[in-house]
Amino acid sequence: MSNQNESRADLLVCGTILTLDNENTIIEHGAVAVADDEIIEIGTKARLQEKYPGAVRLTADKGLVMPGLINVHTHAPMSCLRGIADDLPLMTWLQEYIFPREAGLTSEIVFQSTRLSLLEMIRSGTTSFCDMYLFAEDVARAVAESGMRAWLGEGMFDFPSPNYGKPDAGFAYIDKLFDLYRQHPLITITTDPHSTYTCSPKLLARIRKQADRHNALFVIHLSENADEVNNIRKLYGDTPLNHLESLGLLDSQVVAAHCVVLSEEEIELLAERGVNVAHCPESNMKLASGVAPIPALLDAGVTVGLGTDGCASNNDVDMFGEMDTAAKLHKVHSLDPTVMNADQTLELATMGGARLLGAGHMIGSLAPGKKADMIVLEFNKPHLAPLYNIPSHLVYGARGSDVIHSIINGKTVMRDRKILTLDQKEVMAEMEKIVKDFR
Amino acid sequence: MSNQNESRADLLVCGTILTLDNENTIIEHGAVAVADDEIIEIGTKARLQEKYPGAVRLTADKGLVMPGLINVHTHAPMSCLRGIADDLPLMTWLQEYIFPREAGLTSEIVFQSTRLSLLEMIRSGTTSFCDMYLFAEDVARAVAESGMRAWLGEGMFDFPSPNYGKPDAGFAYIDKLFDLYRQHPLITITTDPHSTYTCSPKLLARIRKQADRHNALFVIHLSENADEVNNIRKLYGDTPLNHLESLGLLDSQVVAAHCVVLSEEEIELLAERGVNVAHCPESNMKLASGVAPIPALLDAGVTVGLGTDGCASNNDVDMFGEMDTAAKLHKVHSLDPTVMNADQTLELATMGGARLLGAGHMIGSLAPGKKADMIVLEFNKPHLAPLYNIPSHLVYGARGSDVIHSIINGKTVMRDRKILTLDQKEVMAEMEKIVKDFR
Repeated sequence: MSNQNESRADLLVCGTILTLDNENTIIEHGAVAVADDEIIEIGTKARLQEKYPGAVRLTADKGLVMPGLINVHTHAPMSCLRGIADDLPLMTWLQEYIFPREAGLTSEIVFQSTRLSLLEMIRSGTTSFCDMYLFAEDVARAVAESGMRAWLGEGMFDFPSPNYGKPDAGFAYIDKLFDLYRQHPLITITTDPHSTYTCSPKLLARIRKQADRHNALFVIHLSENADEVNNIRKLYGDTPLNHLESLGLLDSQVVAAHCVVLSEEEIELLAERGVNVAHCPESNMKLASGVAPIPALLDAGVTVGLGTDGCASNNDVDMFGEMDTAAKLHKVHSLDPTVMNADQTLELATMGGARLLGAGHMIGSLAPGKKADMIVLEFNKPHLAPLYNIPSHLVYGARGSDVIHSIINGKTVMRDRKILTLDQKEVMAEMEKIVKDFR
Repeated sequence: MSNQNESRADLLVCGTILTLDNENTIIEHGAVAVADDEIIEIGTKARLQEKYPGAVRLTADKGLVMPGLINVHTHAPMSCLRGIADDLPLMTWLQEYIFPREAGLTSEIVFQSTRLSLLEMIRSGTTSFCDMYLFAEDVARAVAESGMRAWLGEGMFDFPSPNYGKPDAGFAYIDKLFDLYRQHPLITITTDPHSTYTCSPKLLARIRKQADRHNALFVIHLSENADEVNNIRKLYGDTPLNHLESLGLLDSQVVAAHCVVLSEEEIELLAERGVNVAHCPESNMKLASGVAPIPALLDAGVTVGLGTDGCASNNDVDMFGEMDTAAKLHKVHSLDPTVMNADQTLELATMGGARLLGAGHMIGSLAPGKKADMIVLEFNKPHLAPLYNIPSHLVYGARGSDVIHSIINGKTVMRDRKILTLDQKEVMAEMEKIVKDFR
């Protein structure tokens, strides 16, 4: 790079900078300089304004600039089922309300519903997410339009899918998806065996081969509740995790969602194999699944990220609310208020998620050379005053609605709470048409 | 009233009307007509607009009109301590961070800090609250300025108070408070024995006499955690609740905050005596106190309201977040997703709270003859779409920031998210001055 290029920045994002880097650097009256898709420098606003006079400036009243949040477990298209049924036994909920609607899903419904989730995620400060659902090509199409960063895949199981039909066709569909998005700057395709109770050992092994061929994540629901564990014990004589271990499927490419029901030995096994855990506390609470042993997993050295799960079982995709609940849930569950402090909880939603996705070098903190994924919150609010400690406010006080700007891969996707990549009115109108059929 | 008067309304609050009345009436394209401090009629917007052409109209895009939320347990002035220390063992937190600041409290700090909490409460949809703290006259002064409805009192205990000094002086202070506010339309004074561990039996009995003399509520922290129960057992050979029973202090004037640690017999006793319970799930979680047996209390017929507690242990006073957490916490604690459904949870935050305060005839639902306390939410948001079920969205999806208007006692205290009774900028600036000393 020439000297001339070195002093070009496209964007200066100004405010108090919470880098969440290794030194936990906080810069008051600071700025993050962005060129193309990258953070090139972080420093005081005064110095960077002088150095990069041509850069567009993004500011906010008492603005806090921080890494965008990373939601490691979603089913974005389920937004169309938000609140269609709640407070029911799991099987009634699934069999009478969710499965019948999912059987009638189409490409168009998935596309529109994903757009609705994208609006909500961007508005509430998420810049990256990891999604598993059906019609993944339509999920990807919506994501590409929105400018969000995503890891996403097509759910696989032994029974026929409303999208691809039989599993054989699913593998072809997914190979095509990998081909389509190999060069995409924001979208990474994953392999998504739904669970050990919906995928035979043979299917799991075949998916694992496809994952290895594409060097992709292997994302699976695992040990979500006691019933699942009991059923797998009956089927295979082992817990879901030990079943995967006996099939030789566990390594650091695996993202295991939920992991609520685990023995101490299983916690050790997850750590030894480098398996990543996607923790979804609000969904686990609402479906009465239980409380995942996250403090023990962290102590064992397991990489843990935070996820909202689909908004049919949450009922939102707001990571600020999820952080608040996560911190409080583990305190009351262990009867120890020192467990899951604000810093640790914020880490789950940022660097923890980044490492889980194998993207710790790219996202999760603000540092020169990393991708420019960041959000700006307005801290000039009664519920965020006074300010003694920033992580405390982010975990226990802030709401998704405090986010005012969002920058992903160097591009401003939301400015002054207006999303620039998607037409909110149009998306909301399309959703109203779709749900008329669902009622 | 003459016919002419009967067809005068000052205000028409328009939108989808969620009355939460006994029939759970919902009126689409509806309106609530208000004259002076009262709801005079509820019906379709078309008809009421024609009937009351002179009334000011308050509307919102996809507006939802509902009863204002009732926060039954707060320490409003603690806003100045929000986030000053978190994630610590209870005694370290209290003794090293909270008590030293509380010892230095002044009239002015309490007044300004209460104003900050009032801003936050109004903005997030609370119209009534029940507060216990020190310098209650300054709390009341701020409340009167804000136009909120409150039940509030001065905390009593055996040791000297930074406000009134010795208990004797406290009784005189509180008698004066009753005199000052006897005729106030919005403020009701309560008696506030802090707890059984800070009030001797003699003090409790004397406070009870004062309560009876003024026909006032007797608000007390009770059985918040296992340590408290163990300590009271050691002191008096009984649980805090049975200790109060043996002193003859239990009846329907009692509001017991927390009630986390209760036996089955104690649940029955609360029901028999008509004692009211203020449930504060987020505070109980954050301080790792435990989970109050709310489903069992409701089954036993106990009146339960929802509270945030002070924002030093929450760290907010947002009742929408509190509802979400309450519903989810009890599901996961009981491993039963049918427990604390959206309707029940919403009831805690509205009619439950109203009944707890002895004000079920006045507030908690929208009906002609009741006080005009209501809020309007904007439902035109991605996180509230699509809409299948209103209570589900209010409990699991909505945030305090979705509230756009607030009407209390017939007066519009917030319009288009601008608070009309308090100067937000001034309050925030005053708080910055105060906390400089606290740091």
